[in-house]
Amino acid sequence: MAELVGNLLVAQSGGPTAVINASVAGVIREAGKHGLIEEIYGGLNGIFGILNEDLIDLNEEKNSAIEGLKYTPGAALGTCRYKIDFKKKPENAARDMDRLFEVFQAHNIRYFFYVGGNDSQDTSNQIHHEAVKRNYEIRVIGVPKTIDNDLPHTDHTPGFGSAAKYVATTVAEVALDIGGMATDEGACCIIEIMGRTAGWLAGSSVLARTAGTGAPHIVLLPEVPFNEEAFLAKVKEQVDAHKFCVVACGEGIKNAAGEELGADKSRLDAFGHPVLSGAAETLAELVQGKLNTKTRTVKLGYAQRAAAHLASLRDIEESVMCGEAAVRAAIEGRSGFMVKLVRSSEDPYHCATDLQDLGDIANSVHLIPKDWISEDGFLPNEKFVQYCRPLIEGEPKLVFEGGLPRYTTLDRVPVDKVLQPRG
Amino acid sequence: MAELVGNLLVAQSGGPTAVINASVAGVIREAGKHGLIEEIYGGLNGIFGILNEDLIDLNEEKNSAIEGLKYTPGAALGTCRYKIDFKKKPENAARDMDRLFEVFQAHNIRYFFYVGGNDSQDTSNQIHHEAVKRNYEIRVIGVPKTIDNDLPHTDHTPGFGSAAKYVATTVAEVALDIGGMATDEGACCIIEIMGRTAGWLAGSSVLARTAGTGAPHIVLLPEVPFNEEAFLAKVKEQVDAHKFCVVACGEGIKNAAGEELGADKSRLDAFGHPVLSGAAETLAELVQGKLNTKTRTVKLGYAQRAAAHLASLRDIEESVMCGEAAVRAAIEGRSGFMVKLVRSSEDPYHCATDLQDLGDIANSVHLIPKDWISEDGFLPNEKFVQYCRPLIEGEPKLVFEGGLPRYTTLDRVPVDKVLQPRG
Repeated sequence: MAELVGNLLVAQSGGPTAVINASVAGVIREAGKHGLIEEIYGGLNGIFGILNEDLIDLNEEKNSAIEGLKYTPGAALGTCRYKIDFKKKPENAARDMDRLFEVFQAHNIRYFFYVGGNDSQDTSNQIHHEAVKRNYEIRVIGVPKTIDNDLPHTDHTPGFGSAAKYVATTVAEVALDIGGMATDEGACCIIEIMGRTAGWLAGSSVLARTAGTGAPHIVLLPEVPFNEEAFLAKVKEQVDAHKFCVVACGEGIKNAAGEELGADKSRLDAFGHPVLSGAAETLAELVQGKLNTKTRTVKLGYAQRAAAHLASLRDIEESVMCGEAAVRAAIEGRSGFMVKLVRSSEDPYHCATDLQDLGDIANSVHLIPKDWISEDGFLPNEKFVQYCRPLIEGEPKLVFEGGLPRYTTLDRVPVDKVLQPRG
Repeated sequence: MAELVGNLLVAQSGGPTAVINASVAGVIREAGKHGLIEEIYGGLNGIFGILNEDLIDLNEEKNSAIEGLKYTPGAALGTCRYKIDFKKKPENAARDMDRLFEVFQAHNIRYFFYVGGNDSQDTSNQIHHEAVKRNYEIRVIGVPKTIDNDLPHTDHTPGFGSAAKYVATTVAEVALDIGGMATDEGACCIIEIMGRTAGWLAGSSVLARTAGTGAPHIVLLPEVPFNEEAFLAKVKEQVDAHKFCVVACGEGIKNAAGEELGADKSRLDAFGHPVLSGAAETLAELVQGKLNTKTRTVKLGYAQRAAAHLASLRDIEESVMCGEAAVRAAIEGRSGFMVKLVRSSEDPYHCATDLQDLGDIANSVHLIPKDWISEDGFLPNEKFVQYCRPLIEGEPKLVFEGGLPRYTTLDRVPVDKVLQPRG
């Protein structure tokens, strides 16, 4: 493999996580070790910004800012949900690809790293194949990222462990709160957790059970069809036994007909998925109405993927590791792969990185195995716990300022534009 | 004042906070210093449990558990929303009072400490006056507690600082998340924060503005009548300027007619207040519908008053201090007072405890002063920030186990019942 000299471009895509910037830090740190890589650029707002030639010079950032990225939530480079879609909009997609390679050429981008989830890996895959077709020499490596933990072929995804730690802690704390208030009248609290199709994050709430409150008493996963009657019976059983019931529910839970309990079908996101909002509210009305048990809801929303103040140190370290591994793979001449995590040992836990063909990742979803869920479908079982537990371990040393965690903002020194504005 | 020898009873009431147990720890620690106090009992589930003679022996708890209480959320003794209501149910109330003093007498309770908010201070006040009337010698002291910070005569309430620290951190993190995703289409996130009448906690989100994202861009307080037109114009202005807008809203915001935006009038809690659920959802539908700006919601719910993992160290210390001060006041012969916090110095911040007549507290609500709110009503101003900032400062050293904060559960060794069960 000939040595490839040129510039590096790293960008982020999709929903942020608490550690999405840690992977960027890993890319920057590793890139600094390799003489083949000349400039280190960041693309603002993913592909969307790159098409507009919105690049920043990451070598202009302070060293402390690069370090701070490891502990700062949200996408420091900005993300997008922009998709180059050859199926639905072939003309736009072809035009976008032309423009993208114009930008790559104009800035001699020879190393491209895209940190994202399913859709972003698909984009990376398309860019890789376009490069081959156009005979433009570039190394494209995807870096995994999603709190949903739904990418195939990787043991887990960076971002999941931190979100799981936050979710499990929140469920334990809410259980202490509601458990202390519960009297004979009974009480119920329903906590809605992100995850459209896969229930990994909702499932991770089960880790809270070690905290001694017995909560969550019920976990509703999108993988298990929702049965109203069985659910209400289970809530009643738990309230009768403990005076209170904490339910963790995935936002995307569906009835037997496959209809989402909380979906407003009239609203679609940029990828054509229905927007979800109300699984917890729907369930609360049900419990309140049918069982007459006082029921409150918590909807964690964006807070659960941004809670860097409760990030998992292991997750941070692995996210950095994935960024570093991406650069090393590219330097070794690989392109068209996603970095994946491979768990080689359970006790002591050990994970290493490897590569997976991007074509194997895109638009495929990794769900919780059936035999990791209790027979009645209301709790992830011991296999799930064993898998999940190591991912939330370790706490970073956070710096607080005036009572709040200190997060990093990049200076974002722009790279001079050399192309005409996008038509 | 004659020395009063006897047993101590401490109980908790109302909605828990992250530090409600720290006040109990303060009571127990201080009580241990005074020979006049013989047994140290806890009442389970507040007045409700005391009427059932559900007492536990706090001297049977491990020393480490008492220490652990300082960092454990939820009410370790249990709370209730049970009210002795002479106005609405005079016969029940009279019967309850008879029973209560039977329990006091049976267990020689001579020191009674009730940790709670407005309604609980009212209960303490009634008990104090009943004792005087009945010529039963007991010292009754209220210990303040509420995340709402709405008790009069005290600089602030224990529990508020920790909730404020969590709320401000969450708003800062969500802003980093949504800010990184924002493209020209714009984006909005509405975070619903507890506080039925007073906007202190919603207002505390303004502390997040030091984090550099500019968020929260808008804070909606129950103290300021909601004006739909002005609100939408403000959201549009912020989205136009920053591409995104983070709105922190108090759950109890009202329109000019005094109607709560998120109230479901058909549901009432035990005190006859309407149950609130949907201010954020109502606003989101408005922004989405009228401005066509993609809008998501976060509803922190119980999580915000239970988030001990992000407690303010100052709040913990002051909560302990209030518990200790209550015992010292009782030992000195005082009864019928609530411990209050008096801020004596701003820089360096210094707060001391003092006493306020319980009759001055009950059923009165402390709102944000008008001149602490910006002229357009959309942000607390610098006076509010100056007041609030010291209350969120400091971080306790938490112990984590398996990736989760380790919280304390009491052994709850019951005190033998000596009375007939309550009729």
